[in-house]
Amino acid sequence: MTSIDPLQTRRATRADVARYAGVSSAVVSYTVNSGPRHVAPATRARVLEAIRVLGYRPNAAARTLKVGLTKMFGVIVPDSSNPFFAQLGHALEDAAATNGYALIMVNFDGPPDDVAGGIRSLALRQVDGMLVSAQVSLPILSAIAETGIRTVLLNQFVAVDGIPAIGPDLYQGAAEAVRHLIWHGHTRIGYVGELGPGDQRQRGWRDALVAAGIPIGPMEPAGYSREGGYAAGQALLARDDRPTAIFASSDMQALGVLRALHEGEINIPGEIAVVGFDGSPESEYSWPALTTVRQPVTDMAREAIDRLLAPVESSEFTLHTTTLIVRQSCGCGMPPFAGSPLP
Amino acid sequence: MTSIDPLQTRRATRADVARYAGVSSAVVSYTVNSGPRHVAPATRARVLEAIRVLGYRPNAAARTLKVGLTKMFGVIVPDSSNPFFAQLGHALEDAAATNGYALIMVNFDGPPDDVAGGIRSLALRQVDGMLVSAQVSLPILSAIAETGIRTVLLNQFVAVDGIPAIGPDLYQGAAEAVRHLIWHGHTRIGYVGELGPGDQRQRGWRDALVAAGIPIGPMEPAGYSREGGYAAGQALLARDDRPTAIFASSDMQALGVLRALHEGEINIPGEIAVVGFDGSPESEYSWPALTTVRQPVTDMAREAIDRLLAPVESSEFTLHTTTLIVRQSCGCGMPPFAGSPLP
Repeated sequence: MTSIDPLQTRRATRADVARYAGVSSAVVSYTVNSGPRHVAPATRARVLEAIRVLGYRPNAAARTLKVGLTKMFGVIVPDSSNPFFAQLGHALEDAAATNGYALIMVNFDGPPDDVAGGIRSLALRQVDGMLVSAQVSLPILSAIAETGIRTVLLNQFVAVDGIPAIGPDLYQGAAEAVRHLIWHGHTRIGYVGELGPGDQRQRGWRDALVAAGIPIGPMEPAGYSREGGYAAGQALLARDDRPTAIFASSDMQALGVLRALHEGEINIPGEIAVVGFDGSPESEYSWPALTTVRQPVTDMAREAIDRLLAPVESSEFTLHTTTLIVRQSCGCGMPPFAGSPLP
Repeated sequence: MTSIDPLQTRRATRADVARYAGVSSAVVSYTVNSGPRHVAPATRARVLEAIRVLGYRPNAAARTLKVGLTKMFGVIVPDSSNPFFAQLGHALEDAAATNGYALIMVNFDGPPDDVAGGIRSLALRQVDGMLVSAQVSLPILSAIAETGIRTVLLNQFVAVDGIPAIGPDLYQGAAEAVRHLIWHGHTRIGYVGELGPGDQRQRGWRDALVAAGIPIGPMEPAGYSREGGYAAGQALLARDDRPTAIFASSDMQALGVLRALHEGEINIPGEIAVVGFDGSPESEYSWPALTTVRQPVTDMAREAIDRLLAPVESSEFTLHTTTLIVRQSCGCGMPPFAGSPLP
């Protein structure tokens, strides 16, 4: 055993840590790098204790040069303070940490060139992989290709040629929510969200109505915000063909709709029922509690990290199934907090 | 001019970028490293364009060894999906990005040893600075001291000897909220939150009552969650000395209280008024809209980053003033969305 002088000025080396912990220098390295070989938990604890006592600080930069890994993934999202992305970010971090990786999460919204700039700035930091949640466009795909870094696209709804992508099945999720409102007897079901034929939630809403022989209800465009949903809710209320139920394409929009209905002194769900989309924690505590479509956040996060780590890259596109969470805003007289996948 | 062959296999060098952009090699370096010298925006744009065209990728690891900077800060929070921390994280990223830094944000909750482990794992990644939001304890302070990395504590409410710290003025914020309820005529004002003399919000609540000569209202303990607030709200409703107003120490708790009151068919604010704390975006869209105390998230985030970057470290403790946001749940008949710092 070497005696430890707490006043020593020489920095502790890996050999010192190995000696103190009574293991080989390689085991110290496996512990610090979380691999490539497995280290038994008790041994790992001994090494970490030695690192702590000796104040050892491996030089990550030197390590990076040697093993070619920074053990870091970059993540690009449009808005990390949006509850959906806050949840997704946390789930990604959990999945990454399990594998010894940390995340650099950056926000880039707006024009595709901004997002492309974000991708390049992550590449400058030599991340080992990137997860990009953005609407696909040429500048973004070029930036990904340029970097040469393995990338998985998140929140996609169609396959992108040659690029690995993951997404929630927005189309089926929306259709299931609308079928549930139809099951409640509604025949005038409005839509709040993005317009345009490309939107999968709008398509799901429309196709569910058509399949049931119900006329296409009124639509109000809204961005993905509470404010957007609020304005759209007010607009739907003011219409002659006011709907008796509203499907909103995000929980934030649905919360805005609820506010517009409360202010209009509309009974929810008696006069107008509401269903949201996302399954965010706050949807459970709206009044009334929001029936919504839960996105498979944890599953998507795990798959995203697994695919960055897989020995062989696959450019497959995977769709994850959503779950209808039935609460009260749809008209179901469920007890508080219970939710089950009813029709 | 060098001609650019898109099929070249040799990787572009800094010299190539300099030649293509018509600048010196040093200017390329200043652009990539965001310093140490300033680069005019037009020149910077030219260099970035050259980097893009040539697919140049500076070796961050080599750069790190040379300049001793990874341009990265580490952030530890208890739960990045909590709306308050999601907002704080976004604000920190904005402030860091302005200075050319990226953030590694990690979640560590629970025992102090876990948080200390998180601090050590950030140190292994050679971050240039750390921001730690955790309840101060010996393992955490030791871990910070061991790493030798400049660290600022976030969300603190008392000075910690020798460690730079920033926090919101929870005491004054809570007292102001309770004074507002007293101004509305309430004399039985309950408290939902952490109990114990150390809690600044509880102290603010209590001292405001004492100062007004009002008896200390009922207290219900609750963790920082919607579920915790819900249970506490139900408990307050069941008491003989049911309060006519409730101060909750977070917005999430206040939303849980609102739900308990709605389910109990209590008129809000007619029978029971509610005030929250945080100023999270979702508080604005509760029903009724929540009167709350806004935490100075952006100011605290800016100061945290500025202090990590300051030439000289200061171990000062700064308290940031909160703002009362008056909406409807307190009994003010404000039009929707208006908020002003009334008494």
